[in-house]
Amino acid sequence: MSTSAQDGKPRPETGTPPGDIPPTEFRAAMHRVADMLADYLENVGRYPVVPHISPGQVREALTATPPQEPEPLGQILDDYQRLIEPGTTHWNHPGFMAYFAITGSGPGIIGEALAAGLNVNAMLWRTGPAATELEELVCDWLRQMIDLPQEFRGHINDTASTASLLALAAARQRPRDCAIRQRGMAGRNDLPVLTVYASEHAHSSIDKAAITLGLGLENLRRVRVDEQYRLDARALREAVAEDRVAGRRPICVVATAGTTSTTSVDPLRLIAQICREEDMWLHVDAAYAGAAAICPEYRALMEGLEEADSIVLNPHKWLFTPIDCSVMLLRDAETLREAFSVVPEYLRTTDHDVTNLMDYGVQLGRRFRALKLWMVLRAFGVNGLQERIRYHCGLAGEFARWVKAEAGFELCAPAPFSTVCFRAVPELPAKQQDRFNERLLAEVNAAGPVFLSHTKLRDRYVLRLTIGNLRTRREHVAQAWELIRGAHARVSGWVRHT
Amino acid sequence: MSTSAQDGKPRPETGTPPGDIPPTEFRAAMHRVADMLADYLENVGRYPVVPHISPGQVREALTATPPQEPEPLGQILDDYQRLIEPGTTHWNHPGFMAYFAITGSGPGIIGEALAAGLNVNAMLWRTGPAATELEELVCDWLRQMIDLPQEFRGHINDTASTASLLALAAARQRPRDCAIRQRGMAGRNDLPVLTVYASEHAHSSIDKAAITLGLGLENLRRVRVDEQYRLDARALREAVAEDRVAGRRPICVVATAGTTSTTSVDPLRLIAQICREEDMWLHVDAAYAGAAAICPEYRALMEGLEEADSIVLNPHKWLFTPIDCSVMLLRDAETLREAFSVVPEYLRTTDHDVTNLMDYGVQLGRRFRALKLWMVLRAFGVNGLQERIRYHCGLAGEFARWVKAEAGFELCAPAPFSTVCFRAVPELPAKQQDRFNERLLAEVNAAGPVFLSHTKLRDRYVLRLTIGNLRTRREHVAQAWELIRGAHARVSGWVRHT
Repeated sequence: MSTSAQDGKPRPETGTPPGDIPPTEFRAAMHRVADMLADYLENVGRYPVVPHISPGQVREALTATPPQEPEPLGQILDDYQRLIEPGTTHWNHPGFMAYFAITGSGPGIIGEALAAGLNVNAMLWRTGPAATELEELVCDWLRQMIDLPQEFRGHINDTASTASLLALAAARQRPRDCAIRQRGMAGRNDLPVLTVYASEHAHSSIDKAAITLGLGLENLRRVRVDEQYRLDARALREAVAEDRVAGRRPICVVATAGTTSTTSVDPLRLIAQICREEDMWLHVDAAYAGAAAICPEYRALMEGLEEADSIVLNPHKWLFTPIDCSVMLLRDAETLREAFSVVPEYLRTTDHDVTNLMDYGVQLGRRFRALKLWMVLRAFGVNGLQERIRYHCGLAGEFARWVKAEAGFELCAPAPFSTVCFRAVPELPAKQQDRFNERLLAEVNAAGPVFLSHTKLRDRYVLRLTIGNLRTRREHVAQAWELIRGAHARVSGWVRHT
Repeated sequence: MSTSAQDGKPRPETGTPPGDIPPTEFRAAMHRVADMLADYLENVGRYPVVPHISPGQVREALTATPPQEPEPLGQILDDYQRLIEPGTTHWNHPGFMAYFAITGSGPGIIGEALAAGLNVNAMLWRTGPAATELEELVCDWLRQMIDLPQEFRGHINDTASTASLLALAAARQRPRDCAIRQRGMAGRNDLPVLTVYASEHAHSSIDKAAITLGLGLENLRRVRVDEQYRLDARALREAVAEDRVAGRRPICVVATAGTTSTTSVDPLRLIAQICREEDMWLHVDAAYAGAAAICPEYRALMEGLEEADSIVLNPHKWLFTPIDCSVMLLRDAETLREAFSVVPEYLRTTDHDVTNLMDYGVQLGRRFRALKLWMVLRAFGVNGLQERIRYHCGLAGEFARWVKAEAGFELCAPAPFSTVCFRAVPELPAKQQDRFNERLLAEVNAAGPVFLSHTKLRDRYVLRLTIGNLRTRREHVAQAWELIRGAHARVSGWVRHT
């Protein structure tokens, strides 16, 4: 065996192989990290939710050029604690009540740390047997937990945006005569305009899916909602009929169970019936409220969910799993596989009767996201998860009652889950009312202990308070309410004096 | 303030708020995990690379129904050690030499654990200032490390599949007259067929991008390669000309720096010139070999890289960062933003001059992937990273020399980086030679200590050995070679006796 390199390249046989950092150093650093994480989670409430920093401030504090020489881990962790942790918006903060408050948990962090250690790419069963099978298993657990029939099969994506993209791609794949996978959509005179339907309140990821798939924003019909912000099934039927008359081809409805602004639930049963009649794919975006469906009383608000072709729900939103972990459940996973499976020679295996996760979407690489979800589901149990969801909804219900009872405020939408839309209603013209609420929000958020967000409902500026954080307790909601009332008094004072 | 719930819902004001698992339990479990991770990485070589299990075996060992009651973390970690860890294909194993051997590292694992703790969703600057700015910073460090001009701006996606999809979407967005974002592609008689070009050896993710974007597989031209598996620039020019004559519209070339089968590098300078002349977007898939470009001698193999419109390189492949971490560098990030930015009211902020990462792709949710990359770059330093890349390439070069010197074997392609394509050449007809090599691969992999993969080159079955793992040392490559020679002798024996 010849070993001497003659070509002037560095000779691997000389010197110490460089390898990873020394094992003892890693072990010591991981123990420090264990304490850092535990300390952080115990004390996160001491930070303002949103850091008081200006754009560019974090970056400017760091070296603009890449480090040439290795640095000790201890020094990097010091910088992390000095610059990164305080420069973070604290989604773990009990006062984080904006957007949808996502929430991780101890068991989820542990799962993620172990997954990073294994560093599995479960693109094929063969390259990650446990990762593949655990992914199938935990998705099936979730299927059972939200009471869906056995035929639903699940896999995990990064985000609901990806799942909704895949759902629309499957819907586009289903009409075999279109042959879009092979022939594409441009420059064809045999292909009608393809249309997709979702309510005015469906998530912006549906727009992105329509853009990405080449369907076009203008062919995503934003169907009007009823007074409770639920898709109007009659309007949907009319829109579909109109498109058919015009020679367009309706392929998909995206219904939402828990819209982003108000958490309204579209009439799934009615929509499913229209989809059946019109041969359209029904995708249900339950990214947020799907978590609540593990409680029978909230599942009851989603009657017809079981008739969907695909459903997305995000354990990283409200099932205590660190981001990212978005579960997609499909009645007809085969159509998705037909749309996306591409097996080049270098990925061909002789394995039979296995799931190769790469076949079910855009991404070839698949990290081991099931591990953290498995740990979360076991560490809390279905009962523990239900208890937490109910506690959050209970807090939101209580907040809604405070708002309702307070002069000068109003609730702006039903609050079926843990999100409350409300606003101040000072005696001012509409535009100034909006401006009042904008200032109110800015005032509340500037204080530090809580972070709320906003939306618009019927073109009026509305505040949103959402409970989704494991660390949020009644006292934090009460504090938010006190801050809101205090800010209201101050903003009212300014208005009177200007 | 009224607090009593009248509606029969559980009353949040009574009982203990459920919250996360107890802090002391989490702290203790994280310390156990610190040792589990350190032990695993020190001892991973004791496992077979690919576990000796059958499909379904892991899943069958676990409960089919979701757990109702909470379980102690210790019990879950026991199950992890008993079932999951041994059921895993060990990408960390020094004998993992299949596909592209991805490799994590201690600093990367630490970064991932901390990111899971922070649980930031950096969709907006405001929701993750440090995460957003660190992402911009580390991408700029990488830009400098691979010697690209200042105008390149970077962000991080999950995988190169996503980056290539985005690149093609940007290419589709660039011809303003097409208005595809708004109008889509179906049912239009003003839109020609749009064509994309890549070599026969470009990655399967380019097919998936063509499918997803509705361009169609048949409009992805697979341009022939030269004898060294590099895209033939003359053939590219001809294909583009032919499409123009036929009234089709060429929009993009995907060149590869480090193809999956042989790690060949397409002639970037020539391709860039054609792209300029023909007004096509140039995307360079450097997912694997882009890492090597941090060494000037390997960067020199990619002359013209700096003329690309977009480049993808994966720190999770060969820059010691746990999966997933794929960096996309864009000369013209604005076109990507124009393609994808959708800002609904609930995500509108008053922040100016900030990057909102959600604007640059499909996914709204963005996890804090920059943290682990930052830790890796600092912990190893540019010098340390170069040393490791060179060591890997050196090992591969040595293996290639052994193969070359051995009767009955041949090298099947140049090996410019750390991947070697080779085969046994027994005196048999072509088909039987292929079968011989298939059996050889199966024999080698069945042994346990190493894992190789295969591809086809000019329709012949070829074995691939790739070095990308931090734990792989010369002795492991020597062991692989011994196993290959032993298996060769055995398979030769069977052939003689059948």
